[in-house]
Amino acid sequence: MNFTMSEALEVLESTPQTLEAFLSGLSDDWLRCNEGEGTWNISEVIEHLIEGDKNNWIPRLEFILTEGESQPFPPFDRYSHLRGKSERTMEEKLCEFKTIRMHNTTKLKSLINDEQNLEMTGSHPALGVVKVRELISTWVVHDLTHLAQIVRIMAERYRDDVGPWKEYLGVLKKEG
Amino acid sequence: MNFTMSEALEVLESTPQTLEAFLSGLSDDWLRCNEGEGTWNISEVIEHLIEGDKNNWIPRLEFILTEGESQPFPPFDRYSHLRGKSERTMEEKLCEFKTIRMHNTTKLKSLINDEQNLEMTGSHPALGVVKVRELISTWVVHDLTHLAQIVRIMAERYRDDVGPWKEYLGVLKKEG
Repeated sequence: MNFTMSEALEVLESTPQTLEAFLSGLSDDWLRCNEGEGTWNISEVIEHLIEGDKNNWIPRLEFILTEGESQPFPPFDRYSHLRGKSERTMEEKLCEFKTIRMHNTTKLKSLINDEQNLEMTGSHPALGVVKVRELISTWVVHDLTHLAQIVRIMAERYRDDVGPWKEYLGVLKKEG
Repeated sequence: MNFTMSEALEVLESTPQTLEAFLSGLSDDWLRCNEGEGTWNISEVIEHLIEGDKNNWIPRLEFILTEGESQPFPPFDRYSHLRGKSERTMEEKLCEFKTIRMHNTTKLKSLINDEQNLEMTGSHPALGVVKVRELISTWVVHDLTHLAQIVRIMAERYRDDVGPWKEYLGVLKKEG
């Protein structure tokens, strides 16, 4: 196992600024493209990250810390951001994400003040027994998953434009 | 085709600041991990990006603009950064990348001052006839490929730490 709180926080704290550097100033054609019908565009990915920071990670962590395994935590709706489409700009969304993430990492540090908290267990409605350290690791990898998704969406847009170079570009190789 | 010079430049110009936001301040355990034997760590990926900006993209573009298809351009050694290991810090490497990329995007803008330049063709030693617009598109997707690689390397480090959540995390699904 590689998890430590301090290294997990390095990633969680830098994700908003990474996304800001990456996405601020991109034209709408980049922000609105997706990987085909039924897939998310970049704006929808950012809304999903905001939603997770609002309703998933910290609420579940608090649920484990107070309830343990006594009852499963409520399922998280991974698609709720797709209803009630908002008209905010990318800059506004990135700003909201930065604010809520800063709030949440501060909260995380206050909740986990002891290595022993990391071993506490809760009950995931589908996955069964999970540990606090697994939840926080998953939060980190969830950030990375969606960063990878954004990169893949953008690369996909140039799939035909790269011509014969396609075969050298790993990101254009579809997962099996 | 989706390529436009201005949108390609949006990505090429932001990559250094994206990497800086993402990687500055990460501890050595993040920067030195890789995806297994024979794979690159994050430092090596950054050195490869520097190498490409030094010896690949602009030199090849100039070669096409002056030589056309009259002779194939010299092959690019994609592994040269792995020889002569340097002892620079990540911050120094990111700074070097930012400097050379700024120089190169300025150069790119001065070389391509006309849509017609984009249709000019050269001869790739392995791929055959390639267009300027394909070369520049490939430069963009090459940035994205290596950003995706960095994200994947980091996620891989927590493969076991996420416990049962692994099945929900797309970035941990190995390509086929």
